[in-house]
Amino acid sequence: MDVFEALYTTRAMRRVSEDPIPDDVLKQMVDAGIRAPSGSNRQGWKFIVVTDPEIKNQLGDSYREAWDFYVKEFYGGTSDMGASNVLDDEKAQQVVRISKSAAWLSENFHKVPAMFVVLSRNDPTGSSIYPAIWSIMLAGRAHGVGTCLTTVLGMFKPEKAFEILSIPNDKGWKIDAVITAGYPLGKWGVAKRNPVDEVTYLNTWGNETNWNLKEPLWNY
Amino acid sequence: MDVFEALYTTRAMRRVSEDPIPDDVLKQMVDAGIRAPSGSNRQGWKFIVVTDPEIKNQLGDSYREAWDFYVKEFYGGTSDMGASNVLDDEKAQQVVRISKSAAWLSENFHKVPAMFVVLSRNDPTGSSIYPAIWSIMLAGRAHGVGTCLTTVLGMFKPEKAFEILSIPNDKGWKIDAVITAGYPLGKWGVAKRNPVDEVTYLNTWGNETNWNLKEPLWNY
Repeated sequence: MDVFEALYTTRAMRRVSEDPIPDDVLKQMVDAGIRAPSGSNRQGWKFIVVTDPEIKNQLGDSYREAWDFYVKEFYGGTSDMGASNVLDDEKAQQVVRISKSAAWLSENFHKVPAMFVVLSRNDPTGSSIYPAIWSIMLAGRAHGVGTCLTTVLGMFKPEKAFEILSIPNDKGWKIDAVITAGYPLGKWGVAKRNPVDEVTYLNTWGNETNWNLKEPLWNY
Repeated sequence: MDVFEALYTTRAMRRVSEDPIPDDVLKQMVDAGIRAPSGSNRQGWKFIVVTDPEIKNQLGDSYREAWDFYVKEFYGGTSDMGASNVLDDEKAQQVVRISKSAAWLSENFHKVPAMFVVLSRNDPTGSSIYPAIWSIMLAGRAHGVGTCLTTVLGMFKPEKAFEILSIPNDKGWKIDAVITAGYPLGKWGVAKRNPVDEVTYLNTWGNETNWNLKEPLWNY
């Protein structure tokens, strides 16, 4: 697969089938991940690949608890993640779509065929772990595997996940993300984004690019 | 370019020539970057593409100051970034290589043809900005452009960079990274990493994969 196809069409794929992912694919996803850069090449990372149904069940319970806590804490428990507060209709629609898809993942977390629990230490900025995480997702895309990056399990009540996965809690490790992975039920496509012109300046803040870039530079 | 070639061979390329990068390439690097996922698709990012020699000179001074502060603070000012404290010979050699290359970048920062100053807000974990940053670097690789991710400018004494780039300091923006970019003086290749077997577990911490993966699953 061309690198630009991967970069432009790897979007959050929360709804996936229960079909298992072959070991060779899981292996290459991690192997591509560890080629990513990390500060001073320290590689302060660990990956736990979870496919065991019992562990997935337990993680699913833990994830739902963290997700419910997150939704309650940040959106007052409304199921639309605050979409009713968004004025712009198109954006509100998108938030509704995301919140439905995220709720689907929360309910079906244990059925996702594989998860990559990603841990790091001594990485205060995230700069040494998220390139590896994104590489795992891009490598998955090349194999037709849909992924979704979620941080809630590590951010809210991670103690249970540590217990379930037998992670030592005295070595400085933290769970940065869980990447869920499976063959998508939906379709691949280029995600809609605010165009480059709106988020890019030349040389100094506020200095418009005049690149006039409203459409993606790559087509699916 | 195949996605795996990009994932396996995009390594920190600090030493680059002064040849300018065409606008079309800079554009596509940002355009690929903004396709990356961000939490709830919030896209809380800004990119300042710096090619102006005067701004680069000023940033170079600021970078050198931050870099010297970093080396002094973390390595007691030793030029080898603590390599003399590393017992394993091979690793010590690598740290020496990295420190030399990093010192080169510090001295030549202002001569690098283009820089992407990447800003975010409301992203405590880095999960919503480093995928975009890594995508910019991968897209550069596809165009033969070498990049290096550096966080020191944002971490140490960022006030000066804010001033140079006229970034408002009351809107919650922070500089996550500067990506330096240019045509490499060195060669592309697969970076050496601790193998998958050493950093991956199956289902629970400590449970070896037995994947016996000592060599990269992709060859250059």
